Amino acid sequence: MTGFQSSSVASDQPPALAGDSVGWQVHLAARPVRTPTSADFALVKTTVPRPSSGQVLVRNLFLSLDAGARLRMSDVGVPIPLYAVGAVMDGDAVGEVVLSASPDLAVGDLVHHGMGWREYAVADAARFRRVDGQVFSTLSAHLAPYLTAWAGLVDAAGLTAGDTVFVSGAAGAVGGLAGQIARLKGAGRVVGSAGSPAKVAHLVEKLGFDAAFDYHDGQLADRLRQAAPGGVDVYFDNTGGPQLEAAIEVMNPHGRIALCGALASQNGGAGAAGPSNLVLAIAKRLRLRGFLTSDHLGRTDEARDEVAEWLRQGRRHLDETVVDGLENAPRAFVDMLGGAYTGKVVVRLSR
Amino acid sequence: MTGFQSSSVASDQPPALAGDSVGWQVHLAARPVRTPTSADFALVKTTVPRPSSGQVLVRNLFLSLDAGARLRMSDVGVPIPLYAVGAVMDGDAVGEVVLSASPDLAVGDLVHHGMGWREYAVADAARFRRVDGQVFSTLSAHLAPYLTAWAGLVDAAGLTAGDTVFVSGAAGAVGGLAGQIARLKGAGRVVGSAGSPAKVAHLVEKLGFDAAFDYHDGQLADRLRQAAPGGVDVYFDNTGGPQLEAAIEVMNPHGRIALCGALASQNGGAGAAGPSNLVLAIAKRLRLRGFLTSDHLGRTDEARDEVAEWLRQGRRHLDETVVDGLENAPRAFVDMLGGAYTGKVVVRLSR
Repeated sequence: MTGFQSSSVASDQPPALAGDSVGWQVHLAARPVRTPTSADFALVKTTVPRPSSGQVLVRNLFLSLDAGARLRMSDVGVPIPLYAVGAVMDGDAVGEVVLSASPDLAVGDLVHHGMGWREYAVADAARFRRVDGQVFSTLSAHLAPYLTAWAGLVDAAGLTAGDTVFVSGAAGAVGGLAGQIARLKGAGRVVGSAGSPAKVAHLVEKLGFDAAFDYHDGQLADRLRQAAPGGVDVYFDNTGGPQLEAAIEVMNPHGRIALCGALASQNGGAGAAGPSNLVLAIAKRLRLRGFLTSDHLGRTDEARDEVAEWLRQGRRHLDETVVDGLENAPRAFVDMLGGAYTGKVVVRLSR
Repeated sequence: MTGFQSSSVASDQPPALAGDSVGWQVHLAARPVRTPTSADFALVKTTVPRPSSGQVLVRNLFLSLDAGARLRMSDVGVPIPLYAVGAVMDGDAVGEVVLSASPDLAVGDLVHHGMGWREYAVADAARFRRVDGQVFSTLSAHLAPYLTAWAGLVDAAGLTAGDTVFVSGAAGAVGGLAGQIARLKGAGRVVGSAGSPAKVAHLVEKLGFDAAFDYHDGQLADRLRQAAPGGVDVYFDNTGGPQLEAAIEVMNPHGRIALCGALASQNGGAGAAGPSNLVLAIAKRLRLRGFLTSDHLGRTDEARDEVAEWLRQGRRHLDETVVDGLENAPRAFVDMLGGAYTGKVVVRLSR
């Protein structure tokens, strides 16, 4: 296995596709103890087999970088399957079918699938979902977590018109979408938190949040109260930790909390302090609900079409950072966890 | 105001009822800082006016002692109205109409109301709810928190047949009922926790729990796993704190938690440590819901009739402690908070 830092992909040639060929993949090289570094990844050249009967070969065009992947790199106390050391890191991707041995997908079809962090994916056709290249103006938009944001607001939190919605981690891919979807689905007021003054400005100026604050400024409940003087009806929680505690403090009676992510403990595990004021949930009759996007796949078309229409109408901002080259994926992932970007981060593999 | 310890009620005569008369009340004398003592209460002789037009005079027969009253004695961080120092402590009671100036209630009617901790209550007839003296074998059973237990299981936790149910504080009035109602409504397994070996035995031997453990024994998640090897589907939370954390650890996917009480912080306020593992609620898709009985009053008849029928059939145990005399209410309340009793604690005022 080659350490990532010493690898180079520049001189590699595209596979000939006439027989078994080669493709680059990113593997997990070591389990990070706390904050991952590029040394925890390895860029590895592998053989790409020709598709056998029922299979297709897909050339990936865009990979998704997801903060949730951190939870699968080492055991942080969350019961989800870990990546194996020495194996490819799976993740969402969109690509194009370049060889097909299946009647279900044709060469040239664009597909969404879960075999990212690699140039080529070979698998049964059933593992790929065809996407419409016209629905979004860019193919990468299919990697935006619109379903997560949509299902969290609609299914988990029961968003209703007029609600004041608070989104933490609002400059991230999920949070930025959640704020915008909340607004477009009738929220009365949308407020967000992020990790820098520049991101706070971005939320208000680019994404249409009514108010935002930097969670580093402390006194979180006071800041949230200033941003939402009428209290919070729906909290879309991407962080857990102190921001969840502040939200519980400021929630209105019958408020609803969608538990989506736990950025506050992404490197520290499940042992982070819980909200010390959960007793308030009784008097306020709060509902907290954890959810996984995979339980809401039946909402995919509805959510995608709604979000795509808003985008066509110019009512939503496609907040995306594009990083070029698979070899840059590990660094971009580490930087993303460190808060370097806003919106969705994708890796473009076309070359 | 008379300090409770120096008061005596023994020589007092019943009011003549022909005009204004006297009746004893228990007032809040001081706000307890942590654990209440009898000195925080005062037994006070007050004038009982004749009912004016539309009012009735009710002689209380049984008062309810509720742990929740502790939260109203001093500010422990829960946003519910505090008792005023020097004023009567309200609470649930059942009594008999002895004078009526209302067409809605007649002398001899039995009523349930919220003006406890006093011998006589005078108020508009609308503040009393007539009860059927035949539905339960004892009038005091109307004070049992069957609606709290029933609404928590059915409305807040969405109990379904076959669920494994865990109840903390299970030797208390709400907990004991919750365990029994869960069983009778089709739970597959019912487990409980309590604060002493005698109470643990009581849960299994008298109340029909399948398994129980003493929460003082530590290693709560391990004890809960032993009691519920198949995991927990519904948790009826009367304590918060470490038992809530243990429950989250042992909950099955899609588990539901009814947040009913917070005995773990009843004297310490809302600052007690929250569950450090709430992040598990995401992967497990847990739902936590705080509820107040007052939101579920429409369920009163349904819950009462179901519980009464089980009692008539001998399928449910009426777990009740009766303390005689209003003058003993403060001591009994303090003892109840300290865990001296099992089941519902009522004060009998007949004399």
